[in-house]
Amino acid sequence: MTGAPVDLNGADALLMVGDSERNADLFWATGFRAPDPFIYLASTDAAWVVVKDLELDRAREEVRGAEVLAGSRYEARGDEPAAGGQLGEILRSLQLRRLLVPPDFPVHTADDLRAAGFGLAVAEPPLFPQRAIKSEEEVAAIAQAQKGAERAMEAALAMIGESSVRDDLLLGPEGPLTSEAVRRRIHHVLLDCDCHGEHTIVAGGEQAIDPHQGGHGPLPAHQPIIIDIFPRHSVSGYFGDITRTVVRGRVSAEVQRLHEVVAAAQQGALESIRDGVDGAEVHQAVIRGFASAGYESGEIDGRMQGFFHGTGHGLGLQIHEAPYISRPSCRLETGQVVTVEPGLYYAGLGGCRIEDLVVVEEGGCRNLTTFPKTLSV
Amino acid sequence: MTGAPVDLNGADALLMVGDSERNADLFWATGFRAPDPFIYLASTDAAWVVVKDLELDRAREEVRGAEVLAGSRYEARGDEPAAGGQLGEILRSLQLRRLLVPPDFPVHTADDLRAAGFGLAVAEPPLFPQRAIKSEEEVAAIAQAQKGAERAMEAALAMIGESSVRDDLLLGPEGPLTSEAVRRRIHHVLLDCDCHGEHTIVAGGEQAIDPHQGGHGPLPAHQPIIIDIFPRHSVSGYFGDITRTVVRGRVSAEVQRLHEVVAAAQQGALESIRDGVDGAEVHQAVIRGFASAGYESGEIDGRMQGFFHGTGHGLGLQIHEAPYISRPSCRLETGQVVTVEPGLYYAGLGGCRIEDLVVVEEGGCRNLTTFPKTLSV
Repeated sequence: MTGAPVDLNGADALLMVGDSERNADLFWATGFRAPDPFIYLASTDAAWVVVKDLELDRAREEVRGAEVLAGSRYEARGDEPAAGGQLGEILRSLQLRRLLVPPDFPVHTADDLRAAGFGLAVAEPPLFPQRAIKSEEEVAAIAQAQKGAERAMEAALAMIGESSVRDDLLLGPEGPLTSEAVRRRIHHVLLDCDCHGEHTIVAGGEQAIDPHQGGHGPLPAHQPIIIDIFPRHSVSGYFGDITRTVVRGRVSAEVQRLHEVVAAAQQGALESIRDGVDGAEVHQAVIRGFASAGYESGEIDGRMQGFFHGTGHGLGLQIHEAPYISRPSCRLETGQVVTVEPGLYYAGLGGCRIEDLVVVEEGGCRNLTTFPKTLSV
Repeated sequence: MTGAPVDLNGADALLMVGDSERNADLFWATGFRAPDPFIYLASTDAAWVVVKDLELDRAREEVRGAEVLAGSRYEARGDEPAAGGQLGEILRSLQLRRLLVPPDFPVHTADDLRAAGFGLAVAEPPLFPQRAIKSEEEVAAIAQAQKGAERAMEAALAMIGESSVRDDLLLGPEGPLTSEAVRRRIHHVLLDCDCHGEHTIVAGGEQAIDPHQGGHGPLPAHQPIIIDIFPRHSVSGYFGDITRTVVRGRVSAEVQRLHEVVAAAQQGALESIRDGVDGAEVHQAVIRGFASAGYESGEIDGRMQGFFHGTGHGLGLQIHEAPYISRPSCRLETGQVVTVEPGLYYAGLGGCRIEDLVVVEEGGCRNLTTFPKTLSV
C-alpha cells in the first residue's frame, strides 16, 4: 500500500475516475488495465481502487499498491459507476472531503461533487510529471515493442524490395502491391511479436505529403514511400515507434538529396540530445538546417509543405506524451524516451521522414533503434 | 454544413475537446478519427473543427458537416492545443459566449472558460442519445465486424477441435495448446478480415470463472473454455462481439447441464427482446431462470459466483455503450444493437457464457450472429 504519486497540496486525496484502457495516468498509477470506468483514490499513505463486481477478482490480482473495494452497491447505471452521487457515498465513508483531481477529470462529476460540498482542486497538467522519466523496466518494455516494430519494418521492406516495377507501379506476386497489403503484413508480424499495430502508415507518392495519411491503393515506383510503425505491446501496454522512407525503382537526384538532408537533420538532432538540453533548441536546429539547405516550410499553394510537425515526442503508455521536442521550450531529462523524426513534404516530389527512438542520458542519448536507413530497396 | 446534433437549450454552441480515437462521441459527430486532441464547435446552423497544422489536410478530407479551421496560431503546447486561454480566442472570434459541454468535458478547461467569463452548461449523459439508434449503414458496419468475429471463432474452434488430449491438457502440433496460441490465431484471422482484436478472451477451467480474465497458459481438456471475441473494424471503427463456450474431451453431466441452462436463458432473452421492452425485465427473467434451475448467484467462498454481470450491452463505436440490459430500467428501441450474453461461473465447475449480437426491431430482434452453439468440439 502506498500513497498518492503526486503532491496533494493540502487535499485529503487524489481522485481519478475513468477506464485505464484510455486513461494512461490511471493505468500507470494502479497497474490495472480495465475497459470500464473505475475509481482510484489515494491519500498521503493509503490508496483504494473501487471496481464493479465483474472486475473484482481481476482487480485484486492486478492492482498495485492500493486496496480493492467492491463498487457493487454504488452501481446505479451500467455506464457510469462513478457519478457524483454514488461517489459521494464512498468519499464520505473514507472521510475524504478535499480532493485533488486531474485536469481531464469529467466536469459533470466535478460539478456534482462541488454541489455536494466537497472541496475540489484541479491539478496542473501534466498530472504525473515523473511518468515522463522511464524506469529501466519501462525502457525494456519500450525496447521490446521497438524490436517488434523493427521486425515488421524488415518484412515490409522485403515485400517492397521483392516487388517488380510496371507502369510506374509496384507489382507483387498477386498484382499491384498496395499500401493495404504491406500494412497487413506489418500487422501480422507485429502479432507474432505480441504487439498490436493500428493506423500504421504505408504511404507513397503524393499521399505521403500528408504526414498522418495512412496510405491506400497501389504503391508507386520511383517515388518515396513512408512507413511509420508504432505498435503497442499487448502485455506491457508500452509503445514503440519507427519510420523509414524507401524508394523501389529509380531514385531521382531530388529525392536522393531530400533523403540526405532529412537524414543529416536527424543525425544532428540525435547528436544534440542529452540531459539538460532544451527540446525547442533541438527543434530550431532542425528548422534552421532545412532552411539553410534550401528547403522552405509553410503554406505553399494552399497546403502545408516543408517541415511542419514536431521533431519528436515522448512515448510510453501513450504514443504521444510529454516531453515534446517542438516549438515550446522543454528541458530534456535523463530517462525520458523520445522519438527523433524530422521530415520534409513537397507536392510533386513526395515526403520523407526518418524516425528513431532514443533514451535521454547524461551525456547524450541511447538509440533503441538499430534498423538501417537505406533509401533504395 | 449542419448544426449541433443535440438540443443546445439556449447555448450558442456545443463545445467538445478531445481526440476522437478515444472519444466516440467526437468521432460520431465529426467523422474524423484523430489520435491527437482537437476542438469541435457546433451552433444551431454551423459547425467547426479546429485542428493543428499536421492534421489539416486529412481533416479537410474526412470531416463531415463542419468547416475545418487551422489551429496553428492557438497551438502553444504540444500536448494541449485546446487549453482554456487559446480556446477562448477561438470562441471570441466566432462570437460564442454560452457553451454546452459534454459530461466528460475536462474540468481544467471548464474552470478556465468559466473564469474567463464564458457561460458553461453541462449536458446530461448520454450526450447523443440518438447514437444508440443505429442507421442501416451502421448496422452493416457492425455486421461486417461480426462476420470477422465469426470467422475467427471458427478458426479458434478448429484449433481446439484438432488438438488431442494428454494428462488433462490439450495438445497441439507444437506441444500444449495455450490460450495465447489460440488468441494469436484469432487475431491473425481478424486481421485478414480488416478487423483488430484486443483483450480477446480464451480462458479455460478455473480461469474462466472470472468473466474478464483473458486466459493464459495450457488449455485444459474436459473443462469449459470460454472464447469471447470483440473485434473493431479497422476502417469503419465499429465493433462486433461473440462468445462461445466449448469443451474438448469428456463433457461431464454437470457441465452439459450448465451449458443447457445458459443456452436456454439466452434463448429466452433473445425471444423477449423487441421495441418497447424494458431491458431490466429481460435481465430479471435471466436471473429468475437461473435461480429456478438451482443456480445461485452472489459471493460464495469469498468470490462472486453464479451470474454477476449484465445480460447485454449496446455496441457500436464503443464496445460497451448504451443501452445496458442490466439492473437499471432501460426501454429498448428499434435500431439499437445489443449483445445477449448470460453466463454462469462456479469454482470447481468452470464458466459458461454464450453471446449473440442482435438488432432490436418492432416485433422482435434480428440476430447478426449465425455461429452454432455446440458445446463439444
